[in-house]
Amino acid sequence: MQKITIVVDAMGGDFAPLNDVSGAIIAAEENPQSLEIILTGNEDLIKQELLKHKVTLPNIQIVNTTEVVSMDDSPTESLKTKPDSSLSIGIKLVREGKADAFISAGNTGAVMAAATIRLGRLEGVGRPTIGSLFPTDKGRTMVFDVGASVDCKAQHLVEFATMGSIYVRNIYGVENPKVALLSVGEEKSKGNSVIIEAHELLEKSQLNFAGNVEGRDILNGKVDIVVCDGYTGNVILKFAESVLELMKNKFRTYASKGFLKKLWVGMMYGTLKNVILKDFDYQEYGGVPLLGVNGVVIIGHGK
Amino acid sequence: MQKITIVVDAMGGDFAPLNDVSGAIIAAEENPQSLEIILTGNEDLIKQELLKHKVTLPNIQIVNTTEVVSMDDSPTESLKTKPDSSLSIGIKLVREGKADAFISAGNTGAVMAAATIRLGRLEGVGRPTIGSLFPTDKGRTMVFDVGASVDCKAQHLVEFATMGSIYVRNIYGVENPKVALLSVGEEKSKGNSVIIEAHELLEKSQLNFAGNVEGRDILNGKVDIVVCDGYTGNVILKFAESVLELMKNKFRTYASKGFLKKLWVGMMYGTLKNVILKDFDYQEYGGVPLLGVNGVVIIGHGK
Repeated sequence: MQKITIVVDAMGGDFAPLNDVSGAIIAAEENPQSLEIILTGNEDLIKQELLKHKVTLPNIQIVNTTEVVSMDDSPTESLKTKPDSSLSIGIKLVREGKADAFISAGNTGAVMAAATIRLGRLEGVGRPTIGSLFPTDKGRTMVFDVGASVDCKAQHLVEFATMGSIYVRNIYGVENPKVALLSVGEEKSKGNSVIIEAHELLEKSQLNFAGNVEGRDILNGKVDIVVCDGYTGNVILKFAESVLELMKNKFRTYASKGFLKKLWVGMMYGTLKNVILKDFDYQEYGGVPLLGVNGVVIIGHGK
Repeated sequence: MQKITIVVDAMGGDFAPLNDVSGAIIAAEENPQSLEIILTGNEDLIKQELLKHKVTLPNIQIVNTTEVVSMDDSPTESLKTKPDSSLSIGIKLVREGKADAFISAGNTGAVMAAATIRLGRLEGVGRPTIGSLFPTDKGRTMVFDVGASVDCKAQHLVEFATMGSIYVRNIYGVENPKVALLSVGEEKSKGNSVIIEAHELLEKSQLNFAGNVEGRDILNGKVDIVVCDGYTGNVILKFAESVLELMKNKFRTYASKGFLKKLWVGMMYGTLKNVILKDFDYQEYGGVPLLGVNGVVIIGHGK
């Protein structure tokens, strides 16, 4: 069996290093033969976490780093000002071939900048992209881009469509993934100028292009891949995440209005969770791949 | 009491003229002294609808028109090819001062084009805008633009913020409405190039500018007005509408799995409707104003 080595940024995310280390332990325990994990970060803090779990796993290593890129750090500046960050060193390990993949739940912009600059882009790729999975009635739809590239030309959208198709074919086994452009109407004349131009390019491409879809089609499973610029995709992803929060809040407020209401919400909760909440819980789909860079980089959700 | 005259496009929307006429009757009955309604459209069809309701209301008039702009018609072309449409004549009545406002649930693009070209824009307005109400934990947030102007420069976003502030102050009585830009992060360096430039312009403006918000903040009531280009706003609005559809479908599917499940969903339904579904039902907020044109134009939801 081929062994895979994954670098985990132990200082990334809202609950670092707790969740990063816990996740690493679960993965290392489940795959004792096939997986090697390298945790980058403050060695003392990581060891403390490992001790809490009372396990010694031969397939977890630590690479000590002295700096942390925070959520407020400027992505490109952090590359220069924090050369010994858990993030920077993690990417370096991938570049040097010492690891097959890097995963971080830290500053997304900084991970992207480090990956793009240090690993380089694949040939033909002008902009890397991050996809995100949306649950649908029929399965799933992936939206590209959800924040890697906020200013896009039509050609970049075509690249997202291409990378997305390869990804969905290989990861989900969809033979010929259906790709659509996100627009304000189905007609090819609808959309902003970038979308209208991208529509023409995609029509001429080899991809399985299904035309434009609207915002309402993301959740109906009409297509496998929805393409838009990273600004729009990011806004939709975060909006979608917030819908669940709002629903939970509303139930909490309702339950707080009295004992019977609380009991009633408690009774309904199991069904609600199974029928709707589960599918809207984007936290169940924690990591998204950064496509287009010369190496495997997974961006985890900060929460 | 001042009398208001409203033109209703009786041929607009998915259920025309049925819903348009029914709505007109309700409004006319509720406001016998203060409201005058003019229905534009096929006189025979409208009369048939009026007869069904068995009412004769002195404050409903009909202006017969021979053409209908369909949902597939090109907005600007329809202006030339269908001069005697219910939509075109409706706007004309406003321009000629024979009515105070025009409302249509028909082809949004065509209503906008007719309003912008026939009524003209207000001084200082480069692009008209449509706002849409989003329910939040604390009340409501209005998003501008949701589809009137899909290609925007920074200056257009500032105009949307200005028009939105005036609207929210006058319609909802919010003294000094908080305005934010929709972006991918709160820092002023975050966003696409248009957002970053608009941020600088808004900082220098007289508006109550609260900086950037993210997609997740639309539903949390942090600000009164969220500004973005019409492409992004339209996609979010339609996505939001579809969330309700998806939830309803999931409950329907669950209920169809057996008698007990159906009964259980029936028992929960009242609570669900009150606690969450109601607020997500954007159809309860049927009409949105087209701001920036020289006349009052309300765009209704096609459904």
